[in-house]
Amino acid sequence: MPHRANFSNLTLITPTAKMSADVHGGRAKCLQRLVRLDMPVPTTVSLDFKSVQSIASGTMPDMDVLIEPFGGAPLLSVRPSSEDPDWGGPGAILNIGMNNTKLVELSKEVGERAATALYLRFIQAFAVHVARLDPDEFDVPSEPTAQALEAALSAYEADAEEPFPQDPIRQLTEVLRSMARAWEGTTARLLRQAKGAPADAGLGLVVQAMALGVGASESGSGVIQYVDETTGETQIKGRYLSQSQGREALSLDAPAIYLTRDERGASLEELCPDIFAELLRFGDVSRLRLREEMQIEFTIESNSLRILDAVRLQRSSRAGVKIAVALADDGVIPREEALMRVEPVALNELLHRQVAPQAVRDVFGQGIAASPGAARGRIVFTANEAQASAARKEACILVRRETTPEDIRGMHAAQAVVTVRGGITSHAAVIGRGMGLPCVVGASDLVVDARKRQLVSPDGRVLVEGDMLTVDGTSGQLLVGEPPLREASLDGSFQTLLSWADDVRDIGVRANADTPSDAQTARNFAAQGIGLCRTEHMFFDDDRLTVMREMIFADDAEDRRTTLDRLLPMQRADFIELFEIMAGQPVCLRLFDPPLHEFLPSDRAGLRDLAEALDRPLSDVTERVGELREYNPMLGMRGVRLGVSIPEIYEMQARAIFEATVALAERGVIVRPEIMIPLVSARREVELVKTQIDALAAEVQTKSGQTFDYNLGVMVETPRAALRAGDIAEHATFLSFGTNDLTQMTYGLSRDDAGRFMSDYVRQGVYPEDPFHSFDVEGVGELVSIGANRGRSQRNDVVLSICGEHAGTTDAIAFARANRFDYVSCSPFRVPVARLSAARLVVAEKLSPRR
Amino acid sequence: MPHRANFSNLTLITPTAKMSADVHGGRAKCLQRLVRLDMPVPTTVSLDFKSVQSIASGTMPDMDVLIEPFGGAPLLSVRPSSEDPDWGGPGAILNIGMNNTKLVELSKEVGERAATALYLRFIQAFAVHVARLDPDEFDVPSEPTAQALEAALSAYEADAEEPFPQDPIRQLTEVLRSMARAWEGTTARLLRQAKGAPADAGLGLVVQAMALGVGASESGSGVIQYVDETTGETQIKGRYLSQSQGREALSLDAPAIYLTRDERGASLEELCPDIFAELLRFGDVSRLRLREEMQIEFTIESNSLRILDAVRLQRSSRAGVKIAVALADDGVIPREEALMRVEPVALNELLHRQVAPQAVRDVFGQGIAASPGAARGRIVFTANEAQASAARKEACILVRRETTPEDIRGMHAAQAVVTVRGGITSHAAVIGRGMGLPCVVGASDLVVDARKRQLVSPDGRVLVEGDMLTVDGTSGQLLVGEPPLREASLDGSFQTLLSWADDVRDIGVRANADTPSDAQTARNFAAQGIGLCRTEHMFFDDDRLTVMREMIFADDAEDRRTTLDRLLPMQRADFIELFEIMAGQPVCLRLFDPPLHEFLPSDRAGLRDLAEALDRPLSDVTERVGELREYNPMLGMRGVRLGVSIPEIYEMQARAIFEATVALAERGVIVRPEIMIPLVSARREVELVKTQIDALAAEVQTKSGQTFDYNLGVMVETPRAALRAGDIAEHATFLSFGTNDLTQMTYGLSRDDAGRFMSDYVRQGVYPEDPFHSFDVEGVGELVSIGANRGRSQRNDVVLSICGEHAGTTDAIAFARANRFDYVSCSPFRVPVARLSAARLVVAEKLSPRR
Repeated sequence: MPHRANFSNLTLITPTAKMSADVHGGRAKCLQRLVRLDMPVPTTVSLDFKSVQSIASGTMPDMDVLIEPFGGAPLLSVRPSSEDPDWGGPGAILNIGMNNTKLVELSKEVGERAATALYLRFIQAFAVHVARLDPDEFDVPSEPTAQALEAALSAYEADAEEPFPQDPIRQLTEVLRSMARAWEGTTARLLRQAKGAPADAGLGLVVQAMALGVGASESGSGVIQYVDETTGETQIKGRYLSQSQGREALSLDAPAIYLTRDERGASLEELCPDIFAELLRFGDVSRLRLREEMQIEFTIESNSLRILDAVRLQRSSRAGVKIAVALADDGVIPREEALMRVEPVALNELLHRQVAPQAVRDVFGQGIAASPGAARGRIVFTANEAQASAARKEACILVRRETTPEDIRGMHAAQAVVTVRGGITSHAAVIGRGMGLPCVVGASDLVVDARKRQLVSPDGRVLVEGDMLTVDGTSGQLLVGEPPLREASLDGSFQTLLSWADDVRDIGVRANADTPSDAQTARNFAAQGIGLCRTEHMFFDDDRLTVMREMIFADDAEDRRTTLDRLLPMQRADFIELFEIMAGQPVCLRLFDPPLHEFLPSDRAGLRDLAEALDRPLSDVTERVGELREYNPMLGMRGVRLGVSIPEIYEMQARAIFEATVALAERGVIVRPEIMIPLVSARREVELVKTQIDALAAEVQTKSGQTFDYNLGVMVETPRAALRAGDIAEHATFLSFGTNDLTQMTYGLSRDDAGRFMSDYVRQGVYPEDPFHSFDVEGVGELVSIGANRGRSQRNDVVLSICGEHAGTTDAIAFARANRFDYVSCSPFRVPVARLSAARLVVAEKLSPRR
Repeated sequence: MPHRANFSNLTLITPTAKMSADVHGGRAKCLQRLVRLDMPVPTTVSLDFKSVQSIASGTMPDMDVLIEPFGGAPLLSVRPSSEDPDWGGPGAILNIGMNNTKLVELSKEVGERAATALYLRFIQAFAVHVARLDPDEFDVPSEPTAQALEAALSAYEADAEEPFPQDPIRQLTEVLRSMARAWEGTTARLLRQAKGAPADAGLGLVVQAMALGVGASESGSGVIQYVDETTGETQIKGRYLSQSQGREALSLDAPAIYLTRDERGASLEELCPDIFAELLRFGDVSRLRLREEMQIEFTIESNSLRILDAVRLQRSSRAGVKIAVALADDGVIPREEALMRVEPVALNELLHRQVAPQAVRDVFGQGIAASPGAARGRIVFTANEAQASAARKEACILVRRETTPEDIRGMHAAQAVVTVRGGITSHAAVIGRGMGLPCVVGASDLVVDARKRQLVSPDGRVLVEGDMLTVDGTSGQLLVGEPPLREASLDGSFQTLLSWADDVRDIGVRANADTPSDAQTARNFAAQGIGLCRTEHMFFDDDRLTVMREMIFADDAEDRRTTLDRLLPMQRADFIELFEIMAGQPVCLRLFDPPLHEFLPSDRAGLRDLAEALDRPLSDVTERVGELREYNPMLGMRGVRLGVSIPEIYEMQARAIFEATVALAERGVIVRPEIMIPLVSARREVELVKTQIDALAAEVQTKSGQTFDYNLGVMVETPRAALRAGDIAEHATFLSFGTNDLTQMTYGLSRDDAGRFMSDYVRQGVYPEDPFHSFDVEGVGELVSIGANRGRSQRNDVVLSICGEHAGTTDAIAFARANRFDYVSCSPFRVPVARLSAARLVVAEKLSPRR
């Protein structure tokens, strides 16, 4: 027998008792709030974390003290009360105190059948959850007869090797001990830690007098809520079941009734209009005073209402936004609190179409969730097929082993993209996110057989070209067929919440946008300009690609220049369109970056076509393409290295930028273009390009007679550029930290190759998280802050920003704020997330300034 | 007319005059030293740098003061006197003062013919070098007749539009001005800056009374030296020509005589025994007092000796070492000074066979001098052909577009390697240097046509398989045919000098050695252990390669382990052999590093062979090989990432290391192996591998009953490892900075791809030097010192070193010393260079402690 100690961590819940959620748990605290609101809560005693911990290690509280508030021989329930309700806890045990004597007493009050049913349910719960007997032996019988009861008691005695305990104190003791110990179990611990609970998270328990819900006059139990949990719209919802306890009204096969009067049949509103009115009043009161939309558990005990419990309503992301905005609009909570109530990532669900929550999922395969949202279409295996499909107005899903820049137009034509290789920052993933296209990458268990035009799952199922596939880019699942989807919902609440975020935040948010359509999305999401336009993405259109290839094959600078002259009007038109869309907001144009071989075909057929197009022998073309191939293209002849070695490319681009600027000026729109040099590793690279660009600007100004301003800056994406940022800032008015490449180089890790082992690495805790997904503050971050500090000490008004995949994450925004950066720039579809994250950081800092 | 100023930068050279080389130049200072040694130097006046600078800008010194020391109407010479004689300067002008009057006088003394000859020579020199007239008009006539003289004077007058100047003062003025201005010319400036002169290097001039060398009794001029300039052996060498001036005795078609009596014919020793004896005495005196081997220019004027000039003997690297050691051995200079007199890179010439200096070079092509030394053989285009050639005992040169690990055995079989692609740290270059194999890479002007088996030069010359080629890895030239070579010469002086270096230096020097033969070379060069053994190089032998491939294709860990078990005895034998050769010196073994696909064939034939060997369908093999291919292998699945993902490989290696340690211990040799983990980017990687290796060590110790110690350390080669070196040092007893990869990642630059633009980049000054060749102190260096400091503050006895290509360079050694590193580790053939460099840094610091 455990010995009993005399301690006082038992609190009778009264309006004035000293209680808090981090000592007694959320449920206990919430019950006190209900008591304070004068709700008819049955007598409840709270056991705090410390006392439950003592129970788990064998020290029981003084049971006489514990049961004293409940008066003589009552029935009790025990419920868990963890600090955060989401962390779970053991299931509630009802009807403690039920025994042979009580059965007789209760039979008189509520009838033998109801009393026997209660007893049977208690025996079952006690046997399974407290005495840990075989659940199969303790099914609750369909009919609560005396025989069934006798059988249950015998079964208990046979299994437990002792009779079913009759002493209510002993029953309660065992229940408390069993619940306390369950909290310490490994599974429970892992489960709650997965939900973010700390290792030492405590459990409280609440012991409450039972409101029976069974009896002669109207008795029963039910659950009520005041808004729809999916849409967030105001709506009374819930169920009520006569002669029931707990949440029985919610079970699917229960003959429960609705609460409001409508065409669906009987309702509580009709059955007990006064009680229904009281519940509505409690809804208003709790929303106002608890400052939250609650779900309330109630019992009617012989025509009178008891409130047993109230929990924060579980809700969809969409409902979450609507509720938070409504509470703030109604003055229940301040706007800043509304911001804190919506997790930024939850916005993703609103921004994209999703697989409906109730959909049945026939999972064909699983990959990395690289770009959120769901889409469906017929499978195609090549970019050409995708374009053909789009031309037929048929939705398609592009499935590739991996994508390359040649696939971009196919991606534009597809509803979603799936790749077997690659990680969270592979080509497909980056482009997919940029376009808001659902994308699953690194589905490495699948085999793509492009020749047979089929996709084989790990368990041997085969999908062929033309089969219907649904891609869930939010979960990374590939689903067979057409499960129902839920549309995106950028409603008024969403816009309102983000406008409040903009009022609060203290760091700029721009978008990475390469095309006019990206730019339009950026504008729609209220990005404060374009932080990164990868101008080379404009070169992959068929007509331009041909010119690019001719340029690559040109014999000398003069030849190259002549060829590039044909691209000039196209680039100028690109920039004019971008500038027009952005309507005077800043646009940062990164000069040509990728290695030239990205523009060349690699397969035999492509090489033959190219040889024909260029009217050169195939062997020449093959030779030249072979020469351009690189061991490590990431670290090769690209970025400013191309700019320095083949200056004609930057010359054409700069001319296009300046001529576009002049064209806008002539229409009265003043643009101050920002020109960014990629892959810098030494100051002299910047000097050389700056000299060239300044000369071109002067030339265009002279020729046009228009003057304009422009800013020249550097993309800091090599560790050396970060270390030498002081030197570099001599010639750069802004430094934009490209954390994708910087992460690759700092780790010595190619994002395109990391997919193969990254999940292993994260699972084994080698890296706490995928550094391409989650900003590495202590490694890459140190280089960024070294760079920022050195840049600023050279030029105190240097504009600092982070662009790249990380820029939209809370970690990166927090880092950027801490380092006094001017803005972050992320994919257009992350802009809302970033705006909210940035605002929340400001609010969080106000709330606990020391963090 | 230039106006004359009164200034006093004219110094009559006397034993007590205040003179120094950085004011008056090296020649003037040396002449003063000769005067102090009582040598018969004709009267000489020195014009210092400042005065020559004034002359160049138009201000002449007081000519009366200048010529006063020479008495009435003498003939004079003017010679340049730059601070360092190597910086060059305008040619000497002799016989100034010669005119019609002097001709008459001199004809009486030395005969009309000799006097006319002198006059003619002066007119020619003055016309061409001072008056800058057309040289073709002023050939010195074969016979000095009065007609010839008249013709020369007329030609002068016609060309210069004035008569030949008769005034000796005017002559001297013009000579001085012309020489002063020549120094300021662009060509001269560029030439001397290429030799290391600073932008403001000054020129002094010396004006000397002529010792005529022509006359009635024995007169003439000659040059004498006391050691052989190629071997450094003591030997009187030189030539003497009667009735001559200056260095005429050295011209090839001059009828000059030798100095010493031997079978070669007439000699100065016989002709003028007293003068010869005096010259020998001057040799002894100058060696002792000038502390250097000199070459002396002398004139015999009517049987008496005049010493006109003495210069430091120009010498080969080999002679340089011998002379420095001999001077120190004879107590003429201290040993430390001997160390300072030998440039470390000069040792390369001694370590390798070279193309003989006098060889006629028929240059076929030029590439990057990647591994020094010369070799010749017949051209082969594949590794297999190289091996076949070696089997026939036929010397061959392996010519490849680029080399891969598959070519290693072919490289071993070849005398030298040439590649068309790649830079100073390409595969061929690194392996070549490691093996001491002459190597030229990046010969990008050449076209290799492997199918036609021919090599085409830029000017269209063709060499085919089997043609003889000589590779000069010291200059980067490819020479047609078989020019004579000079053997390597590691004589006693070389060993002595390095032993003195070892006495002085304060940082360890180890070698990077992958094979027993490398290790033996390392021992021969007195390396203090192996700092980097790339253990994977042992896996490329045919039998092991097969096993490796089976391992790669294994289905699961058990399969892999079984396959690796077959490699275990081979690896153990490798390590036993290494440990034996190193005889207890430390050996640092880097665990397996390269990506697995390096072990797989890439061409169709190889794939077919592999499919056969593995008894699998070709499609399977092709698929798997394709899957393993990486976008950026440098940044991919290699190093510790393989170690963590496929732990069986490191397990086998660690077991082999420990079992080898036990085997040595059983023979009484105590080895404390150092195990190094490559490509670390996070502490947890080290923890995981350490746990595994510690467990294996315990297991081997238990099984064998032998105990042993070992050190586990980390190769710091990612920027992140440098930044997180504090964390990492918690589990690492040593940190070895791999500057090759660290440079690649810091710059974001693949060494294999950089060759394409690096020479452009260096030419344009974008990078001051190729960072793979020359250690980048301000970028990469900062990361290394951050890493060193953090590692040390975590663990104050952490052993710090630099390994990789830079480690043998003076810059890197200086950096390593400044950061208190324990040792550097470089290719075996760079060990002597590193030992000397390290010692010289210590001496230099003593000499100027503030540097």
